[in-house]
Amino acid sequence: MIQIEPIGYVKSDRTEIRDDHWNGQSEIVLSGSFSEDALAGIDEYSHLEILFHFHKADPAKINRGAAHPRNNLDWPKVGIFVRRGKNRPNHLGLTVVKLLSVKGKTLCVSGLDAIDGTPVIDIKPLLRGFLPKEEIRQPDWADEIMKDYWK
Amino acid sequence: MIQIEPIGYVKSDRTEIRDDHWNGQSEIVLSGSFSEDALAGIDEYSHLEILFHFHKADPAKINRGAAHPRNNLDWPKVGIFVRRGKNRPNHLGLTVVKLLSVKGKTLCVSGLDAIDGTPVIDIKPLLRGFLPKEEIRQPDWADEIMKDYWK
Repeated sequence: MIQIEPIGYVKSDRTEIRDDHWNGQSEIVLSGSFSEDALAGIDEYSHLEILFHFHKADPAKINRGAAHPRNNLDWPKVGIFVRRGKNRPNHLGLTVVKLLSVKGKTLCVSGLDAIDGTPVIDIKPLLRGFLPKEEIRQPDWADEIMKDYWK
Repeated sequence: MIQIEPIGYVKSDRTEIRDDHWNGQSEIVLSGSFSEDALAGIDEYSHLEILFHFHKADPAKINRGAAHPRNNLDWPKVGIFVRRGKNRPNHLGLTVVKLLSVKGKTLCVSGLDAIDGTPVIDIKPLLRGFLPKEEIRQPDWADEIMKDYWK
């Protein structure tokens, strides 16, 4: 087993777990054990990768096999590592956000699909060299599932 | 504290920790506690996000403040969350890989910057909707640091 310690928390108006409509802004506040130095120079980057813990997900509901995404029978049964939903082993979430501003130990970001109080476990700057080098291929249902996600 | 369990391991010819030249192929093998179902449908995606644990990193060397990336004094001192290096709180690594093939519980991938035996803690399909929506901005030294990374 690997021990992970939150490095900060999400502050957001959104407290309810829902699938879609993650169009808002939110904040990431570093924990008391860090100083502002941990973020020195971060404003030179436009985007960050945020790793977080789906802390409200129910351990009893973890899926380890295949299922219909969002229980929608119109979409094929796919493996838990072929979806991004919260009921996954280790309950880890990951999203690229846009950095809007920095104030002390607080980052203001847009595009973070995590509710208020979510523990953040890492922040990484997004470098162009870490984007996919080839064209992306994905199944049609993946387009459908994202239709209202960022609206 | 959050408990994380490896969901698989990296198999690679590369056993030595070095900064650059991650141009090879490697495998990700799911742990015994999973069946092939966990990967059902994964071949419909071209790219995956791999979360892993820098298991060889020395806990005594974790940096929580600012430092010169790779100890190179030509580059500015930046915070630990403004770099992607291994000596970071929680020792978490994250990389987009290209999926080459699937055989049972083994994924063959290219572009994974993790050595042989690295514990994998999550696999997510890369959806276009999770890429940055705006142009990426990064400091000049970030281009320099990537010069030989994928060569």
